[in-house]
Amino acid sequence: MFSERVLSINESPIRKFATHSLKAKEQGKRVIPLNIGQPDIQTPQAYFDAIASVSPTVIPYTPSNGIDELLEAFSDYYKAKGIPFEKSDLLITNGGSEALSFTFACLCDDGDEVLVFEPYYTNYNTIAKVMGVKLRAIVTKPEENFRLPSQKEMHSRVTEKSRAILVTNPNNPTGLVCTRKEIEDIIKTAVDNDLFIIADEVYREFIYDGTEFISFTEYPEIRDRLVVIDSVSKRFSACGVRIGCIASKNKDFIKQALKLCQSRLCAPYIEQVGAAALMRADQSCIAEAAAEYKLRRDVCMNHILNMKDIDCKCPQGAFYFILKLPIEDADDFTGWLLSDFDLDGDTIMLCPSAESYASEGVGKNEVRISYCIHADLLERAMLVLEKGLEEYRKVKAAQTEKEPAAALK
Amino acid sequence: MFSERVLSINESPIRKFATHSLKAKEQGKRVIPLNIGQPDIQTPQAYFDAIASVSPTVIPYTPSNGIDELLEAFSDYYKAKGIPFEKSDLLITNGGSEALSFTFACLCDDGDEVLVFEPYYTNYNTIAKVMGVKLRAIVTKPEENFRLPSQKEMHSRVTEKSRAILVTNPNNPTGLVCTRKEIEDIIKTAVDNDLFIIADEVYREFIYDGTEFISFTEYPEIRDRLVVIDSVSKRFSACGVRIGCIASKNKDFIKQALKLCQSRLCAPYIEQVGAAALMRADQSCIAEAAAEYKLRRDVCMNHILNMKDIDCKCPQGAFYFILKLPIEDADDFTGWLLSDFDLDGDTIMLCPSAESYASEGVGKNEVRISYCIHADLLERAMLVLEKGLEEYRKVKAAQTEKEPAAALK
Repeated sequence: MFSERVLSINESPIRKFATHSLKAKEQGKRVIPLNIGQPDIQTPQAYFDAIASVSPTVIPYTPSNGIDELLEAFSDYYKAKGIPFEKSDLLITNGGSEALSFTFACLCDDGDEVLVFEPYYTNYNTIAKVMGVKLRAIVTKPEENFRLPSQKEMHSRVTEKSRAILVTNPNNPTGLVCTRKEIEDIIKTAVDNDLFIIADEVYREFIYDGTEFISFTEYPEIRDRLVVIDSVSKRFSACGVRIGCIASKNKDFIKQALKLCQSRLCAPYIEQVGAAALMRADQSCIAEAAAEYKLRRDVCMNHILNMKDIDCKCPQGAFYFILKLPIEDADDFTGWLLSDFDLDGDTIMLCPSAESYASEGVGKNEVRISYCIHADLLERAMLVLEKGLEEYRKVKAAQTEKEPAAALK
Repeated sequence: MFSERVLSINESPIRKFATHSLKAKEQGKRVIPLNIGQPDIQTPQAYFDAIASVSPTVIPYTPSNGIDELLEAFSDYYKAKGIPFEKSDLLITNGGSEALSFTFACLCDDGDEVLVFEPYYTNYNTIAKVMGVKLRAIVTKPEENFRLPSQKEMHSRVTEKSRAILVTNPNNPTGLVCTRKEIEDIIKTAVDNDLFIIADEVYREFIYDGTEFISFTEYPEIRDRLVVIDSVSKRFSACGVRIGCIASKNKDFIKQALKLCQSRLCAPYIEQVGAAALMRADQSCIAEAAAEYKLRRDVCMNHILNMKDIDCKCPQGAFYFILKLPIEDADDFTGWLLSDFDLDGDTIMLCPSAESYASEGVGKNEVRISYCIHADLLERAMLVLEKGLEEYRKVKAAQTEKEPAAALK
């Protein structure tokens, strides 16, 4: 009755425990959300001022590539960072999601492949499946702190169906920030195999501990094979604005992608006005947010790094990390925390990581933790996690003693 | 370098003469736009009031299916029309375009077919091509006033690859409003061949001359095979708001489509708030807009029906009609009007119709005219069209005399 492609898509792990969470709340529990990248930091006032001051006439279609003032604001943002993207190099999209979806459609036909480092942002799965694109994983591992493998290993994953390498830097979900060596290994792999590089750099502003951020835009030799995916969502704590952009110096690519922009007419007018205001306003809010996220990360890490049987390294960017747990099944643990556990009325919602891996069976005992909520909540959440984990392991150990066969299933 | 699918997409005919138009304006001409469905009617004040009054905190992701107040507003709108769509039958989308795109992805795999009456809304081409869907045309003709063919003819176009029939009612670009017989012929074809019906009813409120509007939602026997595409764009003169919806009583369909909604997280928050306000406000604006569009249609028809060598019947719905012209090439004529013609400084921008046909070579001498701009402008535009056509035919006739071979090319 339905297409194979849609049937093959799993429910979003970020949202699949919504029903469990609702029940937990009905039981009177407080559920601290560690599952979703929804910051609690205030959206800058400039956004609200801009949308309130639009003069009331007609809300029209905008040009399919975006309104001029927003294109200019994005261009100025890049130029201030030494990246020479002109307005004509940019296309405004409905969030980073649409930017990626259009990029896949421009580069891949049904059955083509995009190389991606796993674990990766789970929505890449759906976007790829809808477009008939196969994600081909280049493996990175928690025990290696998710550092990228050798250039040789990257190269070995390329097939004749490969069209691009997708790189999320800083990374969601691992928090990894690529080193110059890693960036250059990716570039060599792309050049040697004539691949596009799709660089999802939406978290570029959130880098900690003086780590250097290397953007692919620093390498003029790949300007014709580089597509940058961007978004105002996290940078300005404005996820619901849903404004993103595609940036590329490849004029032919922009021309092709513009046809896809035309097919959905335009991004919403008011949101474009609001996004332009965000990018024109005092940008100190970005550094303030980054400082706040660093503090929140530290709250988590101070706890996590002292937890028993946990091996986790401190992430350098974005506001996520992956936690490999001393358990069998992160799905079961996530459900159990909501249904069967609380610490004086508090519990947590995690995001299991299996869907972040293209490799079968990998990541089943891992969760993604998002640390974009208030430090006090995170402090409490980490304690709930520790105590919950202790209790869960006791429960599981007891089950194993009683019914060894069932527990091993 | 790029995918076959994106290379196969032609530039939007609605926008492809933008450069010609710009040049005409630089020459000091006034270009009256008949090419695009961008109404000049004011967006209701309720929208502006709603977005200005959002309290300034965080603009968050919303639920992927939409904010509750908007789902409720859509549900109430349908119920007021006797259509029992509950909130759980609805998914809020980025305009009708995304609603259609998600519907195609849910029903079709690469190479599957959707039946569609031609001429059709040209963006269907792009949406289909991106999804690897083949549009299979059921032919309707200007000389038959675009009335739908017999049920037998519809049935004959079905193949084993067919998954759905897409029906735009009232129609863009023809202005046709389906009769009960036509609706029931479509239903029989769908039932006999186990097809979904995708009913694009975004123009449902714009029906003239007491013509009866028959919605597919009136037929309970097809509730499980019906997907309705809707949008606030035209109904509230709010094209730039980009809020649409998918409505279906088929719970499994909604469940599948929700996975696609989750992949792009949500529709924009503020636009959803604004759209809900539009649907909650005094609805008399809709009838007022319909009365205005009828007046505008009449201005066009009063002129068109008296034009020499033109055979056009009066459209009954939406705000478009197709004009078959006594020329060879509507693309050439459209460009010529902008580059080489003006009537005391005025010219017009048309939308050639060839892209509205899946059948090869059909519609080359047809244009779509959109009559959603002010009556005075339309009055003038029709005169420009008449005089331009006369002049163009003279020029072409002279060319044929001089260089018969070149003119026939």
